Amino acid sequence: MNKNSDDGAMPIPSFADVVDAAARLKNEAVRTPLLESPALNGIVGGRLLIKAEVLQRTGAFKFRGAYNSLSRLQAQARRRGIVACSSGNHAQGVAAAAQILGMPAVIVMPQDAPAIKLENTRAYGAEVRLYDRYRENREAIAAEIAQERGAIVDRTFEDPYVVAGQGTAALELAEQANERGAKLDAVLIPCGGGGLISGCAIALAQRCPQAEVYAVEPEGFEDTARSLAAGERLRNRPDARSICDALLVPTPGELPFRINSQLLAGGLVVSDAETAGAMAAAFRYLKLVVEPGGAVALAAALSGRYDCRGKTVAIICSGGNVDPDTFCRLLQQADTTQT
Amino acid sequence: MNKNSDDGAMPIPSFADVVDAAARLKNEAVRTPLLESPALNGIVGGRLLIKAEVLQRTGAFKFRGAYNSLSRLQAQARRRGIVACSSGNHAQGVAAAAQILGMPAVIVMPQDAPAIKLENTRAYGAEVRLYDRYRENREAIAAEIAQERGAIVDRTFEDPYVVAGQGTAALELAEQANERGAKLDAVLIPCGGGGLISGCAIALAQRCPQAEVYAVEPEGFEDTARSLAAGERLRNRPDARSICDALLVPTPGELPFRINSQLLAGGLVVSDAETAGAMAAAFRYLKLVVEPGGAVALAAALSGRYDCRGKTVAIICSGGNVDPDTFCRLLQQADTTQT
Repeated sequence: MNKNSDDGAMPIPSFADVVDAAARLKNEAVRTPLLESPALNGIVGGRLLIKAEVLQRTGAFKFRGAYNSLSRLQAQARRRGIVACSSGNHAQGVAAAAQILGMPAVIVMPQDAPAIKLENTRAYGAEVRLYDRYRENREAIAAEIAQERGAIVDRTFEDPYVVAGQGTAALELAEQANERGAKLDAVLIPCGGGGLISGCAIALAQRCPQAEVYAVEPEGFEDTARSLAAGERLRNRPDARSICDALLVPTPGELPFRINSQLLAGGLVVSDAETAGAMAAAFRYLKLVVEPGGAVALAAALSGRYDCRGKTVAIICSGGNVDPDTFCRLLQQADTTQT
Repeated sequence: MNKNSDDGAMPIPSFADVVDAAARLKNEAVRTPLLESPALNGIVGGRLLIKAEVLQRTGAFKFRGAYNSLSRLQAQARRRGIVACSSGNHAQGVAAAAQILGMPAVIVMPQDAPAIKLENTRAYGAEVRLYDRYRENREAIAAEIAQERGAIVDRTFEDPYVVAGQGTAALELAEQANERGAKLDAVLIPCGGGGLISGCAIALAQRCPQAEVYAVEPEGFEDTARSLAAGERLRNRPDARSICDALLVPTPGELPFRINSQLLAGGLVVSDAETAGAMAAAFRYLKLVVEPGGAVALAAALSGRYDCRGKTVAIICSGGNVDPDTFCRLLQQADTTQT
């Protein structure tokens, strides 16, 4: 990784950084399968290859970036511990990585996070500090805890090692598509702050340069789509709401947006109803539990927001940490909408 | 495959037949992943390796045997078409294999089969003939249809090619366990008629001779467990009921039982509540949709019916074709039981 640039901005990770992250993750992360369903192919009139990151350690891709970053800390830094902010999947990724590395971890999580995310984060040995997503500033809370305890503050998607780690998902995806002789026309990736898609875009620019990479966001949180179009980072309305708890950011991450504005083909937006429909399709055809935020890219393909006809399209299902009650409510909702 | 023996009994497939089936299935079946969850390992105090056959084409292992068998028919026989009896997963396996091979297929299915199994079987192009599971004789219905149409009658688990095809699941499992340096102490496999476990036992006897292989059945349908203990094929009570719609057979298959009585370590029995608990655990920790009959082996491990402490145990999750309503009802039931 190159040093910080002169203006203090984080360095953009290189393809070599993604390859390096993959080597570091080899024995810790799952090489998640690339799945295909003839029925789904029939529905979209093209070929869908589904990267099942729900099968990743901690149930979401986030472990990749968290472990890649934390494992580079020296022993003294590890003893200080880490403080991170997360709606739940990064929380679990950081907690699990910290547990493996023997580091104390405090995670600042919204009080309305899914119970499964709160419980799992605690189960990985982390201390959880709750806050109000709509009234409190989580970064300020994290900074205060870090100061009290002398701990290191996690930078989530502003950390080049996190971005490089997330990119390993696409490195695998490209290899797996190649193994089965598939040439990708497009790759659709869920986007919150943009850590996953920016890391993946770096890997795909090298390994699948012909593939167009699209960010997929829920309605009301299409900050990356609008920012890409505008050429600058725009904010979402503070009163926006969505079932996609993992993707509710106010604005694109600074480091991810610098990468995404260079490498992405654009942004796609899906409704919550389309997302619920994609979760039901994943249940039925893929036998996967996908959480709302993890299902938006599949929703873009199934709803026709991205036209897959005659194309080979890879899709990342990025996480599966959803409470049973929410999952069942959305399955029933999708069922009612269809009939 | 050897010719039939003098007494007319079906020949027992050899290990070479399983290897041959694997070669035939290479481009058609999914090499399903072997998954592992640190959380589940913690719960059982051992190491669980989960063969996710829910990710198989048609959502269950049955495609393996059906395609291995049907693909060996000559062109003339293929034109006659196939008539099969199945509660739903073999139905989909036969229908999908027949579709690939351009064969007409009629499937005799119980009228109380899950809607997803009926719909999917029709979606693979098969004609479905419904019958009453508790009052009608499905074999007689199939024979009548076959006579009317000049079609071939499928023999399900009495077909050595079907048994050899199902065994490819364990061939992969053994390879995948080996790739990660795991030496298996035991393999737990759901058992209905016994086609899956008998094929797997043949593969495991060669590739993991040290592993004990156990059939797992739902309470009331523990015909294989009791038959293994008695040394002869016993029948279940006709009034037995279970949520495991895929495993409701009256008695062990003849061919599978000849194999199983030689190769299995024994039979394990789980309650429907334990099965629902395993489905909830698969939802939570593995992010897999597993149907009741597909979850019994996992249930045996999680309930302690098989003591996994200090052991490395492989488990087949054999199918995931379950209706959303049933799935959600059982998740909620499991949740209530736990608290």
